[in-house]
Amino acid sequence: MRKKLFVLLILTLCIGGVSLFAEESIESLGFSLDVVWLFLGAILVFIMQAGFALVETGLTQAKNATNITMKNVMDFCFGAIVYWAIGWAFMYGKDKGGFIGTSEFFHSPMGLDFDSGGFYKSWFFQVVFAATAATIVSGAMAERTKFKSYLIYTCFISAFIYPISGHWIWAAPAADGTGGGWLGNLGFHDFAGSTVVHSVGGWAALMGAAVLGPRVGKYVKGPDGKTSVKAFPGHNIPYAALGVLLLFFGWFGFNGASTSIATVGDGGIWSGLNIARVCVTTLLAASSGAVGALFFSWIWFKKPDCSMTLNGLLAGLVGITAPCAVVSPGASIAIGLIAGVLVVLSVEFIDKVLKIDDPVGASSVHLVCGIFGTLAVGIWGQVDGVAVGVLHGGGFSQLGIQALGVVSVGAWAAITSLILFLLIKVTVGLRVSNKEEAIGLDRSEHKSEAYAGFQIFSNM
Amino acid sequence: MRKKLFVLLILTLCIGGVSLFAEESIESLGFSLDVVWLFLGAILVFIMQAGFALVETGLTQAKNATNITMKNVMDFCFGAIVYWAIGWAFMYGKDKGGFIGTSEFFHSPMGLDFDSGGFYKSWFFQVVFAATAATIVSGAMAERTKFKSYLIYTCFISAFIYPISGHWIWAAPAADGTGGGWLGNLGFHDFAGSTVVHSVGGWAALMGAAVLGPRVGKYVKGPDGKTSVKAFPGHNIPYAALGVLLLFFGWFGFNGASTSIATVGDGGIWSGLNIARVCVTTLLAASSGAVGALFFSWIWFKKPDCSMTLNGLLAGLVGITAPCAVVSPGASIAIGLIAGVLVVLSVEFIDKVLKIDDPVGASSVHLVCGIFGTLAVGIWGQVDGVAVGVLHGGGFSQLGIQALGVVSVGAWAAITSLILFLLIKVTVGLRVSNKEEAIGLDRSEHKSEAYAGFQIFSNM
Amino acid sequence: MRKKLFVLLILTLCIGGVSLFAEESIESLGFSLDVVWLFLGAILVFIMQAGFALVETGLTQAKNATNITMKNVMDFCFGAIVYWAIGWAFMYGKDKGGFIGTSEFFHSPMGLDFDSGGFYKSWFFQVVFAATAATIVSGAMAERTKFKSYLIYTCFISAFIYPISGHWIWAAPAADGTGGGWLGNLGFHDFAGSTVVHSVGGWAALMGAAVLGPRVGKYVKGPDGKTSVKAFPGHNIPYAALGVLLLFFGWFGFNGASTSIATVGDGGIWSGLNIARVCVTTLLAASSGAVGALFFSWIWFKKPDCSMTLNGLLAGLVGITAPCAVVSPGASIAIGLIAGVLVVLSVEFIDKVLKIDDPVGASSVHLVCGIFGTLAVGIWGQVDGVAVGVLHGGGFSQLGIQALGVVSVGAWAAITSLILFLLIKVTVGLRVSNKEEAIGLDRSEHKSEAYAGFQIFSNM
Repeated sequence: MRKKLFVLLILTLCIGGVSLFAEESIESLGFSLDVVWLFLGAILVFIMQAGFALVETGLTQAKNATNITMKNVMDFCFGAIVYWAIGWAFMYGKDKGGFIGTSEFFHSPMGLDFDSGGFYKSWFFQVVFAATAATIVSGAMAERTKFKSYLIYTCFISAFIYPISGHWIWAAPAADGTGGGWLGNLGFHDFAGSTVVHSVGGWAALMGAAVLGPRVGKYVKGPDGKTSVKAFPGHNIPYAALGVLLLFFGWFGFNGASTSIATVGDGGIWSGLNIARVCVTTLLAASSGAVGALFFSWIWFKKPDCSMTLNGLLAGLVGITAPCAVVSPGASIAIGLIAGVLVVLSVEFIDKVLKIDDPVGASSVHLVCGIFGTLAVGIWGQVDGVAVGVLHGGGFSQLGIQALGVVSVGAWAAITSLILFLLIKVTVGLRVSNKEEAIGLDRSEHKSEAYAGFQIFSNM
Repeated sequence: MRKKLFVLLILTLCIGGVSLFAEESIESLGFSLDVVWLFLGAILVFIMQAGFALVETGLTQAKNATNITMKNVMDFCFGAIVYWAIGWAFMYGKDKGGFIGTSEFFHSPMGLDFDSGGFYKSWFFQVVFAATAATIVSGAMAERTKFKSYLIYTCFISAFIYPISGHWIWAAPAADGTGGGWLGNLGFHDFAGSTVVHSVGGWAALMGAAVLGPRVGKYVKGPDGKTSVKAFPGHNIPYAALGVLLLFFGWFGFNGASTSIATVGDGGIWSGLNIARVCVTTLLAASSGAVGALFFSWIWFKKPDCSMTLNGLLAGLVGITAPCAVVSPGASIAIGLIAGVLVVLSVEFIDKVLKIDDPVGASSVHLVCGIFGTLAVGIWGQVDGVAVGVLHGGGFSQLGIQALGVVSVGAWAAITSLILFLLIKVTVGLRVSNKEEAIGLDRSEHKSEAYAGFQIFSNM
Repeated sequence: MRKKLFVLLILTLCIGGVSLFAEESIESLGFSLDVVWLFLGAILVFIMQAGFALVETGLTQAKNATNITMKNVMDFCFGAIVYWAIGWAFMYGKDKGGFIGTSEFFHSPMGLDFDSGGFYKSWFFQVVFAATAATIVSGAMAERTKFKSYLIYTCFISAFIYPISGHWIWAAPAADGTGGGWLGNLGFHDFAGSTVVHSVGGWAALMGAAVLGPRVGKYVKGPDGKTSVKAFPGHNIPYAALGVLLLFFGWFGFNGASTSIATVGDGGIWSGLNIARVCVTTLLAASSGAVGALFFSWIWFKKPDCSMTLNGLLAGLVGITAPCAVVSPGASIAIGLIAGVLVVLSVEFIDKVLKIDDPVGASSVHLVCGIFGTLAVGIWGQVDGVAVGVLHGGGFSQLGIQALGVVSVGAWAAITSLILFLLIKVTVGLRVSNKEEAIGLDRSEHKSEAYAGFQIFSNM
């Protein structure tokens, strides 16, 4: 009997050991799967840099193509180093009052344990988002901004403006419940960054374009006192279209990998299906954004306008970025359609009424649709099965919190970027001379041309 | 003794609990891994839209570049919404007689359980395949099709033509063995869509080009009664090459993720290794397709022809799409080489003999090589270790089933798309006026030009 | 009592069964996850072919755009077939004396078991690295190399030169400890191929450019006996920038998936975190490479030079390729900055002092920075927690081994590629005629032009 029991005991312990080993392996496997998903998502977000570069290059003039391309490449490179040195610390360092992070400046760990190695995992995903916010601005300030001044701007937004408002929303409380960003703690929901990334970039874009002033010849007052608005057509529509498709492609990482994990999360959220839903709503909103802008511009301008339609696709993407995880496929189509119409209205309003010269429509796409997307959570949202959106009978409290976030982050981003651009303007100067602008920034700033050998009209 | 037994019992139960927990976690982990693989694969397929856009833009004239780009972007956007609303239901809704699905129209679930959430997972992968079938057609009909009419066509193929023949092949039987597409039930093997996607798109392309008629000046009868065939050279070969490389890139998702899962499947199929084999055969067939077309065109035309070689690469990809999971690396090289030669012969035959004007060779690549690839299963195939191919002593029964699929799907796609294009022709009209064609569709249809500022020959 | 014990026994066995099943499933899941990571990484490496094509096309003249694009596409296609037939066997076949592999020529297994199926898994990842080494050369030999001769070269490097030195470093010993490459066995560390891929490609590039001689008009001796060096500006800077961003994008696969696995490895290395670290150091080194080259060229040439900056970004990537897994984020920034400065110095030195005409700076980027990156392991390296780098007090032994690898692989690659190019030169000829060079290779070799319809200056 005793012997039998003993055998049984040994057997049980063996099984127990195996089982515990399995447990540990599952945990490590799950961690590895999360890294694979998060990193491939971040790599997709990275290629959005190429998307932005192509959209902005394609929609501006040939004589500035090297300059705008270089700005897009370099805002990533400077931004990455600055976000490593400073930005990360302000955004995800130890929280101070819900407003700012205060540790991990110039963080350079070597280990592969969770304490030091966890930094690599989080930082990589975060840096590509920071770079997206920074690069939005280049389009709105295209064709007239000094290269040097643009580099100064980009360091500040990546080090300071973006990380601090980002901290408000995305810095999670510590395990003991303390800390965490004040807006996030209030229940502000911005899944992948309609506000954190796009509105912040969009505000800086609008402020930059306003401080800079329009391109020479953009708004000309005629002898009758009326101002005529000149359109500067983009020099390469296939670039712009390829850029938009690359942005669409990368956005599946932007929204999809904002699930952070691919496994079952702490709250029992089934991340695999969450990824699936996020990608579906993203795809549908982008598609309906393009459809909405196409039809609206077709009716309004009597032609199926290409750049409006491409901006409509981006508008749908920006609009779905906040609510992508909390709305149904049908709602995502509605959000996309509205964003597509909104962006056309906004481009016309900013150009014709406000008379702010944003060559590629960046502020309309990222600011206006970023705000709309943030509010959409309070309109169509069903967070974790609970209806929070007005249309689902969730009342107005979520919408109110969303609006509070829009206003407070907007105030932060608009004011700090306005001060930044004004400071640059009065110190190193923000704008090239009229002569340099006429020659084109490629030759005046970089002593080169983008298309050597091609015959390009001299008056462009 | 009792106490000991009691302890033992508790211990055992604990272990049991852990073990069952582990079991559940493994299942959910496996599910998450499958989602990650399937979605990253689908995202790769998505970027094929950019590939198609660039190939078609690069191989056509500069004056139509905005138009062809827009068509490629918008067939995806319209197709996605229509496939969500209608196409999905016809393809994967509740089966009716093996011929058509009948449920889940305008399906818009919200939950993250398997019943509603499973839709997100499947739909996302399917929609990018539907979009591929639709977008093939734009190239064959390039440079003369009305924008509006193209949009109408694209809604019909995504809603109706593609999903129904797709149902025949890819709709799996229910758990109780009932339902399922009639061709799939017969044992028709089309792993990733040589027939389902490429032949269907290819038939529509051929029908569209035929109904539309050739571009003005393409076939000119001389005073001697002989018809001379004019070549319209593409305006941007690097675009075309980049497009082909993006298609190659995306095709690893197209074929690779058609394993559906990355884990061990129901039949005990080791999907990890299956993914590996599929990617290897895909890479080798594409490479040998380019090599075959290069050498064949070099011998025939006395020059290493660029567009033929690029089409040869695509021919290899289309050819390996059906058999990629059931042939060896050596066989995949043979398939690629043959497809590469075939596409050159077919381009010449359709252009010079049939006198159907397909500006980019889409029908040769997708239809002819789609048929060849489908039959290749019956020639070189070894399905799950069983030789079904003629060359491996598997007899002719698989080849017969493959031929039946080619003929029946071909009849369906050719007839329905022919009717569709004829109906469009007699209602809203299919083709722009000769004057609009001469000016170029960018200016006549979109009131814009693709390359503002560049000097482009007026006679192009 | 007996009954109770019996129940307990059954219960225990059941749990045991479940537990063992779980164990097996975990192993297979882990394998599947590794395949997913490795293959998605390899697919990212694949798209680097498009990056190389665009960089080389953009930085050379419009009249050679079809030719350089074709060379980039075809070196992959030929290389893949040749690496399958021969190269793989030399690199990873059964080891002979640490110097060469000797089995698995024309390997074409069909099975999905580990013995035959494992080949698919490894080969796919390896072929894209072989293709990278091969394609580096096209840029250095651009604008004057016969198409036919380039194809011959590319078959030899993929079949012979690259695989053999690759064997020395990356062929692991068998399970019984025998075999394995002699350099790898010495402890030479080249994580993702600064030496294996980039230096080998870079040496071939330098030798090819030297044997070929400069483009007509590149170095002209004036009446005063002084040689003036003419710059041939690239014809499409946005292509070059997009190419660099695609290379950056793909490099996350190149370095990241060189972890081989995503799960916990044999040595207990936590691959998930290793992936994370590798991607972080890669991103930072690329960014600081661009920043270093920008500032250095700005100071030196009094302008923020675009092609130097883009090459600086690539220099940072090549430099971090060997040490990416064994240095801290801070060290990676230092490595990038130095590589960025180094590449500017090297481009000037090779162009102005050595007077070897390398149109895109390929030898500076890949050879010079490949050597630097290999040595960087011995300077900043901390392998598996053990400091091996000089700066971390690790002494000079690792640096010595790294230097030995640089010299021996350099000798191999330089001598064999020199012989290869000389043999081609005296047999089929390496270079087109001066007249063909003046006309452009597109028209003289391919009877086509890259940009039909565009007005391009005749003197380009």
